[in-house]
Amino acid sequence: MSKCLAVAGATGAVGTIVLQLLEQRDLGVDRFKLLASKRSAGKQIEFRGQQHTIELLEPAAFEDVDIVIASTPDDVAIDIVKWATEKNALVIDESGAHRMLEHVPLVVPEVNPEAAANHQGVIASPNCSTTQMVVAMKPLHDEATIRRVIVSTYQATSGAGVAGQDELVQSSRARLDNQSFENSAFAHNIAFNCIPQIGSAKHAGYTSEEMKMVWETQKIFDDPNIQVCPTCVRIPVENCHSESILVETEKPISVERARELFENAVGITVIDELDAQQYPMPDNCNERDEVFIGRIRRDLSSENGLTFWCVSDNLRKGAATNAVQIAELVLDQNLIGCKA
Amino acid sequence: MSKCLAVAGATGAVGTIVLQLLEQRDLGVDRFKLLASKRSAGKQIEFRGQQHTIELLEPAAFEDVDIVIASTPDDVAIDIVKWATEKNALVIDESGAHRMLEHVPLVVPEVNPEAAANHQGVIASPNCSTTQMVVAMKPLHDEATIRRVIVSTYQATSGAGVAGQDELVQSSRARLDNQSFENSAFAHNIAFNCIPQIGSAKHAGYTSEEMKMVWETQKIFDDPNIQVCPTCVRIPVENCHSESILVETEKPISVERARELFENAVGITVIDELDAQQYPMPDNCNERDEVFIGRIRRDLSSENGLTFWCVSDNLRKGAATNAVQIAELVLDQNLIGCKA
Repeated sequence: MSKCLAVAGATGAVGTIVLQLLEQRDLGVDRFKLLASKRSAGKQIEFRGQQHTIELLEPAAFEDVDIVIASTPDDVAIDIVKWATEKNALVIDESGAHRMLEHVPLVVPEVNPEAAANHQGVIASPNCSTTQMVVAMKPLHDEATIRRVIVSTYQATSGAGVAGQDELVQSSRARLDNQSFENSAFAHNIAFNCIPQIGSAKHAGYTSEEMKMVWETQKIFDDPNIQVCPTCVRIPVENCHSESILVETEKPISVERARELFENAVGITVIDELDAQQYPMPDNCNERDEVFIGRIRRDLSSENGLTFWCVSDNLRKGAATNAVQIAELVLDQNLIGCKA
Repeated sequence: MSKCLAVAGATGAVGTIVLQLLEQRDLGVDRFKLLASKRSAGKQIEFRGQQHTIELLEPAAFEDVDIVIASTPDDVAIDIVKWATEKNALVIDESGAHRMLEHVPLVVPEVNPEAAANHQGVIASPNCSTTQMVVAMKPLHDEATIRRVIVSTYQATSGAGVAGQDELVQSSRARLDNQSFENSAFAHNIAFNCIPQIGSAKHAGYTSEEMKMVWETQKIFDDPNIQVCPTCVRIPVENCHSESILVETEKPISVERARELFENAVGITVIDELDAQQYPMPDNCNERDEVFIGRIRRDLSSENGLTFWCVSDNLRKGAATNAVQIAELVLDQNLIGCKA
């Protein structure tokens, strides 16, 4: 049966990559709608070898649509879900608006694909910093049950969208030229600086970004006993989030076994040769769809601890790639249609 | 009695700051010698209102010297110690050459000033990433006994000297201008990138920089039961190291009590108002002598855990300031002279 997929927010930083991925992959969909806000509606773009007109994001746009990949701010996502589910379309939402709602599955296909089956018209994709971490945790958790995670992030400015990327470039140039620069995408200058706050103050001294890493991780593994202590930090890197992760497991895992588990896991690439100065970095993980892991070693401070370094393209696996993978999953398992 | 202080490596990144500090502070020393390698010997520089000629670092230079502050590479430091102790001068060494030798005290004046008394002609100043961490740990350790530390660092390029700072500036400009750049100070491009390796592979998958944080911390607190798990990362910041630190203590400490302890500690300044977006960053800690602490909060993943963010100027408290403070300490307590 003929299927129609709509990309909402098609002209944004993530939406642009969603379109690239839909050109590279065959989802078995034969009709596409590219939707965006007033600012972009009416524009022509080439997609899959044809000219497409960007259509306005409005209720009527979801007529005959089966599945929506939405890469928009939270408030727009709430409208999209209302409009799309009324037309019986399934929304894969990359925003933070629906992730923690009880009836909305929060899905990373490598980790909890089974959760997708229970959707009621909306499936959420996690926050970028969570997604790469849970992909890394999955093989260790299956083997030895993770009880505790301590994570410090090194997050790229693309996490704040095109405006964040632009601000890094412009403010870096200004700093090098001894020119003044007025920051707006970030609370402080980001050029040659780092900012230990992403999002707003949320809970017990933690930021909203940090609490996403706590709550989303527990939801994805359906295990409130995984304790997570995050510190989220913005650094002057354009794209790809890095994370220093320490996990404690119920059973011990050797470094050799952990490396084997990572190497055999779907969606993970191991780069781990310290002697040869080889490990993941933003520079070598950019525009890649996998989660990269290196610096795998025993925690020197606990019995069952293991620590490693994890880098992933936050616009790809952290957003676009994960959403497209969810679309592949629901199409493959014939889970589309709104059950609300 | 008239005292003579020699600054070895007087023209380097750290030596330059040592001279600034010696201009600002009165150590009760009335004669100064400025020493450097062949490249700089003979140069004239103004210091304390007078023209000084940089003298060559050679055995004869230590004649009549009482105390040496040495900011040089390890191999030069070994020569300096040999030459200076022969002349009965005490060396305060900022290099890594002597830190872990059993008969050499490793001193941070806010933490273990008592260790200085046992010197045999050499007192070492710790590695920059260790120094700021142990200053932060000290009040918590005194109150509740720290048993475990998990730390991820965000280290500035000035840690690799002037060459590191220059490479960041030049490679950033090249990247912005789409020009190629050949890195030499770092193993990989550092512009808009981060590198999860500082130093060489040393022990069990950890780097030399990371093992300094483990071994030096245990030595400074004279407590091999403090377990440290470090991850050291270079980020594209010119100056000031940042650290995401989690400590577990034998007795619990509340956030309020921890803040009070930090605020009352010598050498620490607390900046901690998340709602007002106030916390330490390289931008607001640059060219300051203190250790700055913010983001103080309970560890969400353990009973007796506390986590916080710590920034300090690695060229100052991480090097020059700590060495000058050691000099003040030994002069004040009349501990100078070589007892070897």
